[in-house]
Amino acid sequence: MKFAKRTDGLESSVIRDILALASKQDIISFAGGLPNSDFFPIDEMEKAASNILSDPESAKVALQYGESSGFEPLRKLIAETYIAKDLLDIDYKKIIITNGSQQALDIIAKIFIDTDSTVLVERPTYLAALQSFSFYTRRFQDCRLEQDGPCLKSLKGCSDADIFYTIPNFQNPSGITWSNSKRQAVAEWATQNNILLIEDDPYGELRFEGERCKSLKHYSKNVILLGSFSKILAPGLRLGWMIMPDTESYEKALLVKQAGDLHSSFFTQLIIYEFYRNFDSQAHIKRISEKYKEQRDIMVRAIKKYMPNLEFVVPQGGMFLWVRFNSRIDSKELLSYALARGVAFVPGVAFYINEKKSSDARINFSNVNADKIEDGIYRLSLALADYVKDRSI
Amino acid sequence: MKFAKRTDGLESSVIRDILALASKQDIISFAGGLPNSDFFPIDEMEKAASNILSDPESAKVALQYGESSGFEPLRKLIAETYIAKDLLDIDYKKIIITNGSQQALDIIAKIFIDTDSTVLVERPTYLAALQSFSFYTRRFQDCRLEQDGPCLKSLKGCSDADIFYTIPNFQNPSGITWSNSKRQAVAEWATQNNILLIEDDPYGELRFEGERCKSLKHYSKNVILLGSFSKILAPGLRLGWMIMPDTESYEKALLVKQAGDLHSSFFTQLIIYEFYRNFDSQAHIKRISEKYKEQRDIMVRAIKKYMPNLEFVVPQGGMFLWVRFNSRIDSKELLSYALARGVAFVPGVAFYINEKKSSDARINFSNVNADKIEDGIYRLSLALADYVKDRSI
Repeated sequence: MKFAKRTDGLESSVIRDILALASKQDIISFAGGLPNSDFFPIDEMEKAASNILSDPESAKVALQYGESSGFEPLRKLIAETYIAKDLLDIDYKKIIITNGSQQALDIIAKIFIDTDSTVLVERPTYLAALQSFSFYTRRFQDCRLEQDGPCLKSLKGCSDADIFYTIPNFQNPSGITWSNSKRQAVAEWATQNNILLIEDDPYGELRFEGERCKSLKHYSKNVILLGSFSKILAPGLRLGWMIMPDTESYEKALLVKQAGDLHSSFFTQLIIYEFYRNFDSQAHIKRISEKYKEQRDIMVRAIKKYMPNLEFVVPQGGMFLWVRFNSRIDSKELLSYALARGVAFVPGVAFYINEKKSSDARINFSNVNADKIEDGIYRLSLALADYVKDRSI
Repeated sequence: MKFAKRTDGLESSVIRDILALASKQDIISFAGGLPNSDFFPIDEMEKAASNILSDPESAKVALQYGESSGFEPLRKLIAETYIAKDLLDIDYKKIIITNGSQQALDIIAKIFIDTDSTVLVERPTYLAALQSFSFYTRRFQDCRLEQDGPCLKSLKGCSDADIFYTIPNFQNPSGITWSNSKRQAVAEWATQNNILLIEDDPYGELRFEGERCKSLKHYSKNVILLGSFSKILAPGLRLGWMIMPDTESYEKALLVKQAGDLHSSFFTQLIIYEFYRNFDSQAHIKRISEKYKEQRDIMVRAIKKYMPNLEFVVPQGGMFLWVRFNSRIDSKELLSYALARGVAFVPGVAFYINEKKSSDARINFSNVNADKIEDGIYRLSLALADYVKDRSI
């Protein structure tokens, strides 16, 4: 068979193997980026589904074809949430409902990326975004991340990029949150250099402490803002959204969405809308944030206990700890030892565009229940000892 | 803003305007390609949703991230259905669950179509497929459709195409079904010329009379077969599937699906699986087929009564009547008159790759209830009279 050139050399991402790992019962997996299914509001979802399907009118809307932009009341609700929380003046007519943020990335790539476009990303960055973009260009640059966001000096060398893909809140994988001043500086730099900003924000609501930061949209008009219900409600519904900066780009995105799959499921859209209408969504988000904070704290304590030399910064929210082993350790090799000890994580190399090996790793603290986290970190410390001994490090 | 070249000149499809039209209350719309929401198995869906969400284990599967290929038991069920009905030896490991067939078209385009690829389509053909392909190539050819399938003589001039996109059962828009002998001939021609066949089959189950025809896969290995739950269950669930011909193309498709939106909703996948497990899906399909047959018959009778000179062939299934007005009539102009009389349809020109005007039209008989079909056709006959009088035809 003759395949299109854009598929040359593309290989399965580590994510896929991760999901396979995560499903094995005997392994404690810190690898996936999955929310904890124990905290899904299942009863409320059941009630929402039942409300929708027991009313013939709403059942027909839920089960029929609908508009490519999405269920209008849900789009309005999303806009209102931003207006209330972030004082952002969002026009719901610029919002398109997508199948999670992942689809928004693909839509953006299709609209904005030519084969000679350059995409700038943070170092490290979210691997599945790279995967989406790779079908359209192979030109990537990255800029160093500091504790409060991109290194501005490093950015200066990247001003010929076309797009800057960012995750300013509790970044996947590093856990870093950009300061407001860095947000402002990056937005100004992007405006000066005519660079489109993508602000991917799936974790922003999962803040455990500290003050909520401002969206890049506060500082620039040239921003596409992405949100998702996957981390705050449930990823199985496959729903997120994208907010386009102007009518022209909105119209293009809508065409791509329409050609891509006509629209996202109205059934799942109505369930979310019904959930927000009938239940206290903010209380739910507060509850899971508290749970994740507990899990983060248990993990931090366990690492300090079993691997006191491990370097990491405690993230203020989200789902990930980013740890740095001794520089002589290749974390991809360490993974084999870890699997032998019954624990999994993602080697840092998966989050870099160029590096072939690295000594860092992403450790997820949301998906594994509190009572298993310490055991998992203990297993990891045993694996580390095995590795160090084997290699005489 | 600087957009990618592939978006140049792309405009909103007629489908979008159609869906807008269809939602206005005072218009009888024969325009959309929507199933009739009165026949959705709403109670059964409610029961299925409740079964899934009331069991914590299945609820967690439904609401969590899942495999990019889809829910394995559903993939197996799809394979078994083909094996039972069509004696086709389908390996479920070649099946990927998609967001309706529309997403399968986009995935295929991404894998197989370069900017210099040529896509062959039937004349007329499904407009939203063209829309999907147009992001990847602008090189289209079409071959004439006869009452039993593609004109083989016309095909001979198209042997340098890379892909042939087909809808062999109750085609959208023409209603035509290919004979088995045409299927065999086209498959052999495609194999000789190394042309990949796409067999889009959303309507195949909606057969009112006559014998079930064979899939193109019976005659060639080089076929991607697409199916959908949209027409037999409910489009709002946004679920269909694609069956890839070999492991290599399956792996590529899976990568594209993963980069595109990770996976389709497991909640809606589990609902469909639960529906098939607990209810008689074949009885449901038989029931809606009988209803659609009734509606088709009412429409045919009304056309014969109010517009006896209109040419059309009665389709053996599906959702559409394809009618041919007097050759001096431009059906796009007629649409304005029709809307003024409170009825809508799709002008034939929307289904051609080159023609700027045409005198044919697609009239949907599935979405409008039986008691309104005659009134709609009567309104159309009045519009036709208005037009003929105005233009002195």
